[in-house]
Amino acid sequence: MKKILKNAYVLMSADADIKKMDILIDDDIIVELSDQMYIEDKEKIEDKYEIYDFTNKLIIPGFINTHTHLAMSLFRGIGDDLTLQNWLFNEMFPREDLLNDDLTYYGSLVSILEMLSKGITTVVDMYLFMEGTARAVKDTGIRAFLTRGLGYDNDDGWKRRIDETIYLFENYHNKYNIKVGFGPHAPYTCPMNKLEEISELAKKYNTFTTIHLYESVNEREMYSIQEIEKTGLFKNNVIAAHCVHVDEEDIKIIAKNEVTVAHNPSSNLKLGNGIAPILKMLEHEVNITLGTDGAASNNTLNLWEEMRLASLLQKSNGPEKFKTEEALRMVWENGGYALNEKIGRIEEEYKADLAIIDLNNFEFYPIDLNRLKSHLVYSPINKVYATMINGEWVYYDGEYPKLKESDYSGKFHKLYFDLEKKFKKSKGE
Amino acid sequence: MKKILKNAYVLMSADADIKKMDILIDDDIIVELSDQMYIEDKEKIEDKYEIYDFTNKLIIPGFINTHTHLAMSLFRGIGDDLTLQNWLFNEMFPREDLLNDDLTYYGSLVSILEMLSKGITTVVDMYLFMEGTARAVKDTGIRAFLTRGLGYDNDDGWKRRIDETIYLFENYHNKYNIKVGFGPHAPYTCPMNKLEEISELAKKYNTFTTIHLYESVNEREMYSIQEIEKTGLFKNNVIAAHCVHVDEEDIKIIAKNEVTVAHNPSSNLKLGNGIAPILKMLEHEVNITLGTDGAASNNTLNLWEEMRLASLLQKSNGPEKFKTEEALRMVWENGGYALNEKIGRIEEEYKADLAIIDLNNFEFYPIDLNRLKSHLVYSPINKVYATMINGEWVYYDGEYPKLKESDYSGKFHKLYFDLEKKFKKSKGE
Repeated sequence: MKKILKNAYVLMSADADIKKMDILIDDDIIVELSDQMYIEDKEKIEDKYEIYDFTNKLIIPGFINTHTHLAMSLFRGIGDDLTLQNWLFNEMFPREDLLNDDLTYYGSLVSILEMLSKGITTVVDMYLFMEGTARAVKDTGIRAFLTRGLGYDNDDGWKRRIDETIYLFENYHNKYNIKVGFGPHAPYTCPMNKLEEISELAKKYNTFTTIHLYESVNEREMYSIQEIEKTGLFKNNVIAAHCVHVDEEDIKIIAKNEVTVAHNPSSNLKLGNGIAPILKMLEHEVNITLGTDGAASNNTLNLWEEMRLASLLQKSNGPEKFKTEEALRMVWENGGYALNEKIGRIEEEYKADLAIIDLNNFEFYPIDLNRLKSHLVYSPINKVYATMINGEWVYYDGEYPKLKESDYSGKFHKLYFDLEKKFKKSKGE
Repeated sequence: MKKILKNAYVLMSADADIKKMDILIDDDIIVELSDQMYIEDKEKIEDKYEIYDFTNKLIIPGFINTHTHLAMSLFRGIGDDLTLQNWLFNEMFPREDLLNDDLTYYGSLVSILEMLSKGITTVVDMYLFMEGTARAVKDTGIRAFLTRGLGYDNDDGWKRRIDETIYLFENYHNKYNIKVGFGPHAPYTCPMNKLEEISELAKKYNTFTTIHLYESVNEREMYSIQEIEKTGLFKNNVIAAHCVHVDEEDIKIIAKNEVTVAHNPSSNLKLGNGIAPILKMLEHEVNITLGTDGAASNNTLNLWEEMRLASLLQKSNGPEKFKTEEALRMVWENGGYALNEKIGRIEEEYKADLAIIDLNNFEFYPIDLNRLKSHLVYSPINKVYATMINGEWVYYDGEYPKLKESDYSGKFHKLYFDLEKKFKKSKGE
């Protein structure tokens, strides 16, 4: 049934003005925007349309989270205060060795439910046991771009991971709101000839690629962006996460190849990696998007926090250097551009991926249309009022209408405590 | 009536372990903490005690916000993307000229209600038309340390502001949960002989002082901390806000004089002032607390955000450099120490200033006692379940039990839009 969202304020895109508008949605698409939807005969209408009165609510495009490791909500808050090496080798890797599809299902489910409650409608994910994650995507309705993380240890291991990617592609690509792509972990875990192989595969399967790039400073000793360019990887649609330690030459190559940067400001600070040179990238017109990264290195999966932090960090160079609209573009239009989808704007023919915000929260006071963009960027909230993906409510006033599993918290915690027990046993504790 | 808070997890202080404990509160004081409160005869008990079942909730000390300008919620989101000078002279000062006690009452009321919903129980404030703010404090029940901002323009202006401080002291000090102190705005607006005068007055009235110190880099050209030390100001109980641009010599003087630093990481970034050298201050054992600053330069009045940001900014030097407990001390014990009050810990004989958190939020998943401190610091929330000050509920499950005014939002917005109209008229628009 068609839906009409009435009486709300609407922010169509980062650069638009906020206006009162009604939105008509047919199936998964926004078909009409109007100052005041014409309603012929009220009685008849109510049989043909679901009508929602969103007085004192603000409708914005759903947020696009371009770098996540969904299953890692299982690892939230583990080893925060350790050095990066200690955290990775003694806390993260041994736990990852214990994962399976059941764990990644519940870990991903909890992450996705958190994101839906915060207005995130699209994620780009890279991790292990991705079938568990794909099932969680299917059960929640989030729009997902999934990749199996690829690293080279030996030929057998590499082949197994490529096969897992192809399996995922054949069983989930273009189904359940999922697109499957390639996820070479990083240039220091995938040698250049393997990146070549991936660039051929991504071309063959006509899909996107995502990779970690220059996250930590020591990567500068390990590879150069010129080498990567030569592998042909950048000829595909590529999202490069982090890019903290890029110099101006690197940025020029990123810009020239139209590689999208997924900026993860919280994760970069939390793991001690620093601040990406966003102003310099903007000068070169790089397409910048935002990511939460996984819960282990953030901890909250909240793009409101990333917008705020990205803005504050750049404003430190002068309050006028980074504009409110810039942050909004990063979670909306730039994400849609990166993923080549009609998302990230409220516009006719665009996908009906929306977040509805209750303005009756102190974060949005004064409720003045001239101030609301500032409130959106600088006053993070934990919960939107409702989230719609493809014209369907996936979160509505605290409930998840699509979700059948009612005991996700119990199951998540049972699996978590079992995992912790096994981890401790493996350490001989 | 005595209150028993039962079945909750309790974090008594930053360095404590989280344990299940019952808390007995008599009037405004925590009188007993126990693994399991002994209850003699259940029937009798319910006449003598209010009993609260806080299963699956976490009780923490209320947060102490050591730098605020409460009334500035009226200015949230104004001129974000302007240079500091443009923002101050063209947006802030002309609006401040239009303030009165009615405006500061509703501005402060909205700020305090926001803070109570986030678990903040104490504020240190400096602003104008402070009687409006004092009335809002009285009506909401927050613990407040209030100062009239003092700057020198001419002798008459100076005398008027000192008189306003004395008036406030005589009418509000040690009443309605308020202490009144002295608020010299900054060393560049109060000449050294005026700081001398204030240091004498603070001694005479035996109260605290708060001042802005080295917020922006250009202040280094304007005064030296050695001069200030000579005025005697530091002999009183002093909270110095910001201290972004202090060098190691300055830090030594701050430490030697036991001046408390109110660190405002969001405001410092948003106004383009940079990052205070917190690790260096910790080396010198400076007492560091956290502040939200006013809503105009933040925007959200949320100490959860300040804990997160303070931690992330320092972790950028290496994840092991700044520990979870350090951030918690800044919002709890260090605040109590700065204000010389038994607040900031859950301990027998301490004031019953508490925040109750519902753990059934994704921010706190996995709900594992070993992870909860990390969740507290890195996963900001907008709303706690309940907030208690002096043994009284000031916020409870979305309601404000003490508040009589029901239309604060309507009145706040009416005054706000009137102010904006006058402001535009004054600019000839």
